[in-house]
Amino acid sequence: MKYSFSSRIEAVKSSAVRDILKLTQGQGIISFAGGLPAEEWFPIDALKSASEEVFRMGTQAFQYGLTEGATSLRERIAKRMLTYRNIPVELDEIMITSGSQQSLDLFAKAMIDPGDVVLVENPTYLACLQVLQLYGANVIGVESDDYGMIPEDIEAKLKQYKPKFVYVVPTFSNPTGRVWSVERREVLLRLCTEHEVLILEDDPYGELRFSNNKVPNIAALEGNVANRIVAYTSTFSKTVTPGMRTGWIIADKRVIQRLARGKQSSDLHSSVFDQLILSELLESATFSLDDHIHKLSLVYKERMETMATHLQQDEPWREAVWKMPQGGMFFWVELPEGLDAEALLKCAVGKGVAFVPGTPFFAGAAKRNTMRLNYSFAEPEVIHTGMDRLGEAVGEFLGRHV
Amino acid sequence: MKYSFSSRIEAVKSSAVRDILKLTQGQGIISFAGGLPAEEWFPIDALKSASEEVFRMGTQAFQYGLTEGATSLRERIAKRMLTYRNIPVELDEIMITSGSQQSLDLFAKAMIDPGDVVLVENPTYLACLQVLQLYGANVIGVESDDYGMIPEDIEAKLKQYKPKFVYVVPTFSNPTGRVWSVERREVLLRLCTEHEVLILEDDPYGELRFSNNKVPNIAALEGNVANRIVAYTSTFSKTVTPGMRTGWIIADKRVIQRLARGKQSSDLHSSVFDQLILSELLESATFSLDDHIHKLSLVYKERMETMATHLQQDEPWREAVWKMPQGGMFFWVELPEGLDAEALLKCAVGKGVAFVPGTPFFAGAAKRNTMRLNYSFAEPEVIHTGMDRLGEAVGEFLGRHV
Repeated sequence: MKYSFSSRIEAVKSSAVRDILKLTQGQGIISFAGGLPAEEWFPIDALKSASEEVFRMGTQAFQYGLTEGATSLRERIAKRMLTYRNIPVELDEIMITSGSQQSLDLFAKAMIDPGDVVLVENPTYLACLQVLQLYGANVIGVESDDYGMIPEDIEAKLKQYKPKFVYVVPTFSNPTGRVWSVERREVLLRLCTEHEVLILEDDPYGELRFSNNKVPNIAALEGNVANRIVAYTSTFSKTVTPGMRTGWIIADKRVIQRLARGKQSSDLHSSVFDQLILSELLESATFSLDDHIHKLSLVYKERMETMATHLQQDEPWREAVWKMPQGGMFFWVELPEGLDAEALLKCAVGKGVAFVPGTPFFAGAAKRNTMRLNYSFAEPEVIHTGMDRLGEAVGEFLGRHV
Repeated sequence: MKYSFSSRIEAVKSSAVRDILKLTQGQGIISFAGGLPAEEWFPIDALKSASEEVFRMGTQAFQYGLTEGATSLRERIAKRMLTYRNIPVELDEIMITSGSQQSLDLFAKAMIDPGDVVLVENPTYLACLQVLQLYGANVIGVESDDYGMIPEDIEAKLKQYKPKFVYVVPTFSNPTGRVWSVERREVLLRLCTEHEVLILEDDPYGELRFSNNKVPNIAALEGNVANRIVAYTSTFSKTVTPGMRTGWIIADKRVIQRLARGKQSSDLHSSVFDQLILSELLESATFSLDDHIHKLSLVYKERMETMATHLQQDEPWREAVWKMPQGGMFFWVELPEGLDAEALLKCAVGKGVAFVPGTPFFAGAAKRNTMRLNYSFAEPEVIHTGMDRLGEAVGEFLGRHV
């Protein structure tokens, strides 16, 4: 029996990186690889109280639900989006998804015909690259610097390629940790409006801020217009729990209608039980999500600073280039030219520490000397040990390769 | 702004039927339309106890999980599949999905290139037709009778079309309620093995039996072979709760690997919280899923018989053709030739009762005089009232149309 699979699924290669990382599980290896939240900070008691409320409601959490999502949860997220993000949302402009990943999948499913162009930052979120590849998109990277995409290059590529949409993670980006300047956000919005090209703003990390400097979302800059070109997606995965797979997407209602058609066919709807628990949590009298996010941000800031100390002070990192993140979960580190981070990973795993090499985050030619380091998952003393091991690997590697 | 969507999403039309049915919600209209389980029978207390166990486990239900699904749930389903279904399953041959609908979506995603042929019973599950359409399959109906697909037609079409797979719902089929004979199952398995064509056996209703006559699954007839051609999917939606969106798919491990690659890109994994609750439920000391399913089957049998009494005794149904279901959730009724069930639906909704016309269940030319009636959701006295209203509509309609 020869199994014959679709071209689309065979195009999504199981990456060498994922294969190496699989080896690291449960082996006493310290992982800076994933994008995992700090699990000791999950608000489990609050979730338990919320679930008890949901059980008291009777059968409604257990029957089939609306494809667009539970009405109470959509209303509460819409309220929160307006209050905290200044993004105005009507009920028919928001759909609940099984996490941001599903928002990306459904958006691509509803937009992309094979060969259609999508513009992305370069590097960008690797699992979005996979989704785009799976639906046959022609993914083109736009030149970017520390402030976001370069206006001249956006404009040239909008003209040259007439893309289906532009995908951006403008706040505490994955993998670079970057925050786009307000000006760059405004330019992207203006250019895309002129060229009638949709923007997909992916914002899973936006609330995990280490300072009071709150940059407006592109969806907020657009505001309440008749024909939205910005679609915005976020999730409870980084602020409450990823285990309940609950996110949302905001867009023009005609876009939401197509996304709902795709979701109907993908999984009918997301878990009603989980949606109602999160809806209760948002209105809890005893739990404040804002206080929780504030605490979590302080925890992550401490971990980020712990990792930064090593990058600043330890000899092997002397030639590495990186920026101090203002929020989110990641350091993006550029090692000296010529150094291959995938080879370094093998060496590091041998010493008991893992990270993600930068290669899979690039559309097109990759900078092979880049790496992403996650600091949200491990506690500070573990970060110390892990960075000692990683510094040793980098040191040996520089000795060998430079 | 002109929104430009993908051809695949525009190909999935919002059906006239769905639009009519949307009007029926919360209007005092009795619905025989959906495939909803009886919500007063959801095992809410048992789910609550199981959720308390999961909260006691600490953080594991709330962190990111394995794409293939929680190991304990996969192990317990595998054990149950062997005990109750005689289907042998290794851990790398089973993946948890967000309900059967996602199993169908991921299977199609991993198998179908545009233009590939898929063979189906005719009529068949309408949401599977949508999935197949969305991925660009060329869907071909195989001639069927009360015992399953006709062997000569299967063989002819396997030769003619070299299909990617054959999709069947052989036990208490949706929409026809049919049970394939053992012989027909064996013939399909033999022919597909000879032609090296996969079978996707969709079995959401198999446990809801009204008699002791247990027909073996096609996956059980195949047994423990080196190169499985049968992929089998089922769900907790009909036996426990659809609100937690948890199903599973069993297949050769190379197939599971591709499905997992698709799932990684679709939603990373299903809700760990819901998976662990269902896993606890399967091993509960105070709740027996088998006793629960037995009770539920008795409840559905009574509702089926209540509806059958009307079909047997009420004058408007005199010329209708239907069979007594041996399990599952549906009657399939063929009205006199020339009668249009979509027109009848409008009339019925006017009288306060809804059903699904047969048209959307057909691949290719539809029998427009067919309808699907659900009996699992409404209690017997509601079924009486609904069937009185529906009989009135059919009577008027026959007066008008014959």
